[in-house]
Amino acid sequence: MEIVTRPASMTALSREFRAKGERIGFVPTLGALHEGHLSLIRRARQCSTQVVASLFVNPTQFGPLEDFQSYPRNPERDADLARLAGTDVLYIPKVEDVYPAGYRTYVAVEGLGTVLEGASRPGHFRGVATIVTKLFNRVAPHVAFFGQKDAQQAILIRKMVHDLEMDLEIEVCPTVREEDGLAMSSRNVHLTPEERRAAPILCRALRRVESAVMKEGERHAKCVLKLIQETVATEPLVFLDYAAVVDAETLEPSDRLQGSILVPVAVRVGTTRLIDNVILKVEE
Amino acid sequence: MEIVTRPASMTALSREFRAKGERIGFVPTLGALHEGHLSLIRRARQCSTQVVASLFVNPTQFGPLEDFQSYPRNPERDADLARLAGTDVLYIPKVEDVYPAGYRTYVAVEGLGTVLEGASRPGHFRGVATIVTKLFNRVAPHVAFFGQKDAQQAILIRKMVHDLEMDLEIEVCPTVREEDGLAMSSRNVHLTPEERRAAPILCRALRRVESAVMKEGERHAKCVLKLIQETVATEPLVFLDYAAVVDAETLEPSDRLQGSILVPVAVRVGTTRLIDNVILKVEE
Repeated sequence: MEIVTRPASMTALSREFRAKGERIGFVPTLGALHEGHLSLIRRARQCSTQVVASLFVNPTQFGPLEDFQSYPRNPERDADLARLAGTDVLYIPKVEDVYPAGYRTYVAVEGLGTVLEGASRPGHFRGVATIVTKLFNRVAPHVAFFGQKDAQQAILIRKMVHDLEMDLEIEVCPTVREEDGLAMSSRNVHLTPEERRAAPILCRALRRVESAVMKEGERHAKCVLKLIQETVATEPLVFLDYAAVVDAETLEPSDRLQGSILVPVAVRVGTTRLIDNVILKVEE
Repeated sequence: MEIVTRPASMTALSREFRAKGERIGFVPTLGALHEGHLSLIRRARQCSTQVVASLFVNPTQFGPLEDFQSYPRNPERDADLARLAGTDVLYIPKVEDVYPAGYRTYVAVEGLGTVLEGASRPGHFRGVATIVTKLFNRVAPHVAFFGQKDAQQAILIRKMVHDLEMDLEIEVCPTVREEDGLAMSSRNVHLTPEERRAAPILCRALRRVESAVMKEGERHAKCVLKLIQETVATEPLVFLDYAAVVDAETLEPSDRLQGSILVPVAVRVGTTRLIDNVILKVEE
């Protein structure tokens, strides 16, 4: 596995891959790799001749009061894990090369970036859209892989790629979970043992929703939201930030469940913020 | 010359060119081609193996009160001119394919897009940055050509390409002028004969500035602006919209002329808005 830190070297490599007719699969990450990321790299390995992964804790997607400084960083461990999962090139650019003094250009996906996570984290998705565009331009992937856990991010990036006519595919892969159902997240390491035991209520609330909708025929968004509130409320350490029932493409709120529906939930456990979601394909 | 209207066909062609190792030169235009555009196509011909030009009157760069509807359109004539100047592929996408229903994604270059032309035309440069990004993603050029007449546009696009790490070069080519100095513009056709005789005052004002600075040693921005105001005021049909003395990279106003200085001017002649500029390299 080759480790690349200079942006110009990354461009040189992707030009070389493209000239040779290689198929470039790309997995952008903030580092602190876990099984979720590794599943994306393994998937990229299956359908690409060159697998590029990136580690970059992107400052523009963190708000001023958020955890940019304390976000877990361990590039040596990440490099080992990325290599073992099948990465050919690990791109680790420096913040000062990605956002030099005088940086000015941002990509925004209107509507999709300001609701749900975007309402709780102003500017977050503008930072995501911008860094993903920049990484895509460096790495020149044929296909890029994102996790379903960050559902809004995946929807927004797919929309951005379509709107900006980027010549690449987006593949969204299933959320990888701990045995007790907690979605893998780099932020899980911040949980105290007590908080860690409480956190799976998030996933359990979503499983109850799935069962209510798919097995019991629940179709009212209000009832789905009430079910989430009541389930999360049973765990005194976990506080609901938001839950919603929205169209899985436009993120517009739905009163009745029909078609492809996303149910995203965000909670706070102590000082840690966790998100999870379920997509429901509801027939008429 | 091949005429392409479907975006997917354009992508297929650029992929084919890239796979064959061709060098793609790209000239994006709003159509209504004049000698300025043709000089860009000829320059592209010199340094590319495939010359792609585009005709697209981009609605997102026109304000609601601007001349989107009346902007001159003549694709048959444009196609003849583009072919004769050396175009290999003429890309003429449809508005509904470029901005389908539900379009949401925009690129903005902060600071550079809201001053000067951007102050007079809110949203204009967001529209420019967005369409140029979209066309670059379709055409996949190695080099793209822009005219110096639209100085702020050229500066903003160069900055966008650098910031978003796009893997291509921007070449800015000299303004092409009529015999009496009037900068070529698709909007010149809107001038009445009387207005047309008055319009070159814009260029004469800039020549006076150049002479005052480069020959007579003028270094005060205030005196340069006064010279422009006084010169334009001698033409009763021409009204000054703005004139400025700014850094040619950051567009920040300069009180004293030193380094690379841009002097952009915009005027109204009847219902027509015209712009022109001069870049001055001022030694200490």
